[in-house]
This record gives sequence, structure tokens and C-alpha cells, in this order.
Amino acid sequence: MEKKLKIGLIGLGTVGQGVVKVLSKFDDIEIISAAVKNPNKKRDVEVKQVTTDPLELANNPDIDVLVEVAGGVGVIDAIKTAIKNKKHIVTANKELLAKHGSELFDLARENNVVILYEAAVAGGIPIIFPIKSSLKANEFSAVAGILNGTTNYILTKMDEENISYADCLKKAQELGFAETDPTGDVEGYDAMYKIAILSNIVFNKRIDISKIYREGITNISSLDMKLADEFGYKIKLIALAKSLKDVNGAQLLDIRVHPMLVSKKRELSDIKNATNAVMLKGFPVGEVMFVGPGAGEFPTASSVVGDILSIKAEINRKDDILPMSVCHHTEFANQINIEDTKNCYYLRIKANNIPGTIGKIGLACGNHNINLSCILQKGVNEDRSATIIVITEECYEKDINSMMKTLEETSEIKILNRIRVM
Amino acid sequence: MEKKLKIGLIGLGTVGQGVVKVLSKFDDIEIISAAVKNPNKKRDVEVKQVTTDPLELANNPDIDVLVEVAGGVGVIDAIKTAIKNKKHIVTANKELLAKHGSELFDLARENNVVILYEAAVAGGIPIIFPIKSSLKANEFSAVAGILNGTTNYILTKMDEENISYADCLKKAQELGFAETDPTGDVEGYDAMYKIAILSNIVFNKRIDISKIYREGITNISSLDMKLADEFGYKIKLIALAKSLKDVNGAQLLDIRVHPMLVSKKRELSDIKNATNAVMLKGFPVGEVMFVGPGAGEFPTASSVVGDILSIKAEINRKDDILPMSVCHHTEFANQINIEDTKNCYYLRIKANNIPGTIGKIGLACGNHNINLSCILQKGVNEDRSATIIVITEECYEKDINSMMKTLEETSEIKILNRIRVM
Repeated sequence: MEKKLKIGLIGLGTVGQGVVKVLSKFDDIEIISAAVKNPNKKRDVEVKQVTTDPLELANNPDIDVLVEVAGGVGVIDAIKTAIKNKKHIVTANKELLAKHGSELFDLARENNVVILYEAAVAGGIPIIFPIKSSLKANEFSAVAGILNGTTNYILTKMDEENISYADCLKKAQELGFAETDPTGDVEGYDAMYKIAILSNIVFNKRIDISKIYREGITNISSLDMKLADEFGYKIKLIALAKSLKDVNGAQLLDIRVHPMLVSKKRELSDIKNATNAVMLKGFPVGEVMFVGPGAGEFPTASSVVGDILSIKAEINRKDDILPMSVCHHTEFANQINIEDTKNCYYLRIKANNIPGTIGKIGLACGNHNINLSCILQKGVNEDRSATIIVITEECYEKDINSMMKTLEETSEIKILNRIRVM
Repeated sequence: MEKKLKIGLIGLGTVGQGVVKVLSKFDDIEIISAAVKNPNKKRDVEVKQVTTDPLELANNPDIDVLVEVAGGVGVIDAIKTAIKNKKHIVTANKELLAKHGSELFDLARENNVVILYEAAVAGGIPIIFPIKSSLKANEFSAVAGILNGTTNYILTKMDEENISYADCLKKAQELGFAETDPTGDVEGYDAMYKIAILSNIVFNKRIDISKIYREGITNISSLDMKLADEFGYKIKLIALAKSLKDVNGAQLLDIRVHPMLVSKKRELSDIKNATNAVMLKGFPVGEVMFVGPGAGEFPTASSVVGDILSIKAEINRKDDILPMSVCHHTEFANQINIEDTKNCYYLRIKANNIPGTIGKIGLACGNHNINLSCILQKGVNEDRSATIIVITEECYEKDINSMMKTLEETSEIKILNRIRVM
């Protein structure tokens, strides 16, 4: 009889319970023990043995694979110990991998074990493995996606129901789509971790997350959404990474997370509610897109158990390691600063409606090498102020910044929002 | 130094040339020889040696992997011989796999080699490997997709430009999107082969393509598209497979290819031109969708070379075979007849506008257990005839067939088209 694969599980929250339920269908896989914060908490599932000490699992010689679905960087010691004890790792922990991935992958390679993490990016959507297998022949030029379900849910509701960010957040919290402290989602940290992991495997470079530009959705108003809609755009929180070349032909990576106006002609603009989507652009494949549930008990369990089954298939072989799941690159990417990126911009401007205002805006743009693509003023408000919408052609972020500074110096013009355009 | 992987290539058409170009970037992979129909034809690429006999490659002891991108079932002898000579196979040939897959996979298992075929379904979109790896924990209930680029291109143009099927086909032929003999595409054969292959791996059953119901797009008119649009639908050629249960709980598969009205709320309705899309529904993952280029020189080469690289990664290991790429199931699916499927239907009816016509339609539906969901008559034509559109609720295909027969027996009612609704 084939040997049972023995699992230690860190975390028995929503995803952990999903993993237990899904694994119950597989007779040849057994959860030996689970590490939890509070062993007395009522749960949907039973596990043979429960501990409060993750290190106990890391040191348990019966365990073949340590599965970590607790989240946060606090589990790093347990994971490092497990790797040193020659256990394979399956994790859904984007923060840990984005912050300490290099160290962990180095350690895994030294110890001839693998770290699989399909669930860490875009939940149930298969993306890590396809990039490493079916799409392996490609040189990628860009990856972009909607990688955070909470913010996409909030933005969808703001758009569909024309309500404020604050009201949407409250609703999302009531429905369990947003955490009590929503910072990790709404300020773009979660999406930043995920684009760091994706960039790592798409461009075969190590990524420094402190160099990733990050901006959340808290400044988006339903007025911005309405105006964007009129111009043919939806507003989405986009995580993106592009490969550029410097003057000497060396690779530069432009990696960032921020809201964007996405043309309704692009499929990403149609991704609604908590759904995630990842778009890859490369040669020879062209553009491919993956769409599906980015979080949740069962979708995440689908990816976690998929990884466990991949290890199960390999572990009975004569070889020691899955060649495809080893991270061979050790070189850090050359990441460019947001100031040096090129974008189109949407500007919502409040101006006193005195003669020459539009002229001043146009002049300031011209003086900073910025071409306008669209400009719109619809009448004058009761207080004689006017809302002016400008969409620029592609220009440098540093140029738009100095242009904005020039405009802000005039007393009659105030820039209320600036959003990049995809 | 690592041993070079040596390739024999059958077919140097568009895809074959793409494969040669993409492989030229990989120093550790070498094309030894290519088999072509006409060695004197002018081509974009050079191959070391060219032969007209595919069996020469199958018998060449220097070749590790036989890559077949010629298409058609004529290559079966070469492929069987290559397998017997312990060569791994990479193929883009959906017709061959749909018709002779069982035999070929049995032979491959006996000879401890693999057959990889990512390019056979949905061109550049990674779908075969993700189902077998990241999504392996799932039990699937349905797979549906737009799997033929030519017909989707024609339907998109008919819809956008309001022109007839015949004119669109002609245009597609001029642009190289359709073959001189378009039968394989427009009659649904190509999509049928692909849904057979997908059903095989999604449901782990062997599929009899003679039991797949197949209907092409030649009867779709731009009037149908306009009317469908008014009701909130787009018309697409859909390949689908659903897992059902009989009264004893045994699995039945409902596999078919035919045009469908797809609700504009579904993402599949947005897939335009030659783009392909595959939607998978399963537990625990829920719904995931893959979108991308379904054909073409480079997208197809992306999948073919991805498969070659997977074999390359494995072939240097101590083990003999990729466990994930073996086809273990040998049981045939229990496929149900189209008569026994349940669907909603769109009917375009021409009726003499005499009193009682709508009543007759309603009565015929009622007599055959068919509930109406929508009915529309917009005025009366000059010849006193009227166009009536009916959309039914879900009912058995056999019931709609007998209802239609009843109606056709009256002299005043003629059913001009019937299209199923997704």
C-alpha cells in the first residue's frame, strides 16, 4: 500500500477549515496535527490533534508537508524550522513570501524541499503553476490584475449603487467582505504582496517590496466613478508590473499598485465584486487572462490542496525534488521609481470660473511636456466654481507632479483628485 | 554539460514555423529533422534536415521527442511508431486525440512515455496542465467554452457589422481567419474535438465523439443576432460538457457543440473575434475562466514549446515518466442523447397574422410541458405575416421537438430558427 501523506496544518480559520473539509475526501492524505491560536474556539471541523505551538508541527518527524494558512510573518520561524527538518511547505501567505521569500526559497533549495504557494496569489485561480509550466516558453513584458477582492467589491458597489467609499466599506464589513481593520486591503498592501510574488516568477527576479509604489482606494469618490464612466472607463485597483529597458538595454521593472481608470473596452474593466483577474502579456503567447474567485474558504482550499496533491504525486518518486517548483533566480530586479514612470492621467480640478482658467491649465500642461487628450467642463456651480476634468496623453509622473505644483500655486485652481489611466 | 533535447518535427506550416522560431532561443533543444509534404515550399525558417516521410522521424534513434503540428489523422502511424520507439510526444492535433486518444494513451502508458497536448485545446491558453495540477483537488460539474476562433470571429463580425453569414465567411477567408473549405470550423467539428479532449480530462472518462451532438453556425442570421441582442443575449458557438446523475446516481455526461444565446451578463458573451475562452465549474474552486488566443503561429507555439520544456525538465531526472501527464482512466463515459437534455430555447417563428396564432403557439407549448419566458411580436409585415420570437423556460429537447412538429403541421406557422439558450 502507498504511504499516506502526512500533513501539519498551521491555521484553522476559514481557509484552514476549508482545507480540512476538502482533504477529508482523500484517503491517502492525513492531517496529523493543527496549530491554532485558540484551541477552544468552536469550529466546523475536527482535527486529530491541536496545538498552540506551530514549532511543534515543524519538529514533528511524522509530518511530511507543513501547510500554512494562518497568514502574517509570525509563522516564519516555524516554516524555517520545518524546511530545515526537510518538510515540504504549502502556503497561502502572500505577506510572508513577499517579505521573506528570497530567504525561504534559498533555505528550501539547500534542504532539497519545495515551497508551493498557488493560493497566495488570486486564491482559487491557477496562476503560479501555469506560468511555470504551460507558459514557460514565454518572455513576459507585463502582468496586470485585480488581485484584491475586498477593494474590487467596494469599487463595484460604489459604481453600481452610486454610494460613498465610507458607506461601501461599512457594508462590506457587515457582509464579511472587509476586515474590521481594512488597512491591508484598502491601502493596497495585500495587492502589493501579490504583485511582488507574481513579478518574481514572471520576470525571474527578486523583488524589493519597499520599492513598489502603493496607493489605496480611500481617495476614490463616487463622483470620480461617474465622471470616469462618462469618458468610457471604470475605476479599478490595479496591480501591475512591466518590463522596460534602460538606455543601455538593461531590464528595469515598473511595479506598482494604485487605482486606475480602465477603458471599458478592456476585459479587466468587467471584473466585478470579489472576483480576481490576472492578465499576462508575453511572447510568444500574446495576451492571456485568468478570472475567478480570489479568496474564500473553498476556492483557496482548491489551490492549497492542489499543491498538496502535486507534492503527493512527486514524493513517491525516486527523485528528491520537483524541478519546476524550485526558485533558481537570486538576482534582484532593478525597480524604477514612480517618478520615472509614464502614464496617462485623469485630473478632477476645481477652479474659480474666472476668465483664463482653462488657459492656465492648458499652459501649465504645455510647459511641462504634457499633451491633453480630453477636457470637460459642464457649466458652473452655484458658488461660481467649476469642475473641470482633464485626461492627459502619456507623460512622465515627475512632469505631472511639477505641473500640479504649478497649478496649486495659483489661488483659483485646486486639483481634487488625480488617477492614472490604463 | 547537459545533454541537448533532440526534436523531430512533423509539420512546417504556420504553427511548425512558429515552433522553430521559438525553439531557436533555447540552446539546449535541437530540431534534428522535420517531415513536410512539400520540401521545396518556401518557408520563413531553416531546419537542419527535411524529409517527406514522418516515419523516418519516428524511427530515428537520435530523436527524444516527436512534435506533431501537422494535423489530421494521417500521422497516426508515425506517432504510434514513435511511441513504440520510446519517444515522448507533443502534439497540437485535436482531431487525432479526439478520435484515437484512448489507443494512443494506452500505448504511451505501455511504453512509459508521455503525450502532452496543451496546444490541442484553446491554442495558447494554458488549460490542460492547470486542470491536471493546480485544479486537481476539484470535482468538476461543467466545462463550457468558445473553442473555435474562426466561428467566433464570424459571429462577432455578423453582430457588429450587421452582415450575413455568407459575407462574413468570405471576409474571414480573405483575411486568413477561415480555410478555403471551412467545414471543420463552421460545422463545429473543431470545437467538438476540443470539448471531447477537455471532457476526457475534466471528468476522467473516455469520450465517444460519435455521441457528441454537433450543430454549426451556418443557420444563424444577422436577424437572429439583432433579436437576441434585444433580449439581452449574444449568439456564440458554445462547446459544453456537464456532469449529470441518472436516477440511480450514476454519472451521465451531456456533451455538445451548438450555437447558443449567451446572456450579456455572462463573461463568455464578451469574448470577441478569434479569442477563445474556457469556463470551468467545480468544487471546491467554484467558477474559473481562462481567456486568450485560441490559434495562430506564436500562441500555439507557446503551448507546444511549454510542453517540450516540461519534458526537458523531466527527462534528465532519474524517474521515467511524468506522473501528472499519464492518462489513467480507461472507462468510457455514459453520454446522454441530445433528446434527453434540458435547455431553454429561442424560436423565431413566421406566422400568418390571423386571429388565434399566438394562442396556437401558447397551446402547443402548454401541451408539451413547455413554459414560455418571453414572447414578442412587433407589428405585421406587408404580406400580413408576422415574426414572433419566443424564449422558453427550461424544457426537454424531445418536448420542444414534438411541440415544433405540432406547430409545423399547421399551415400558418413556420419555425424559421431554433437556438438553445445558455
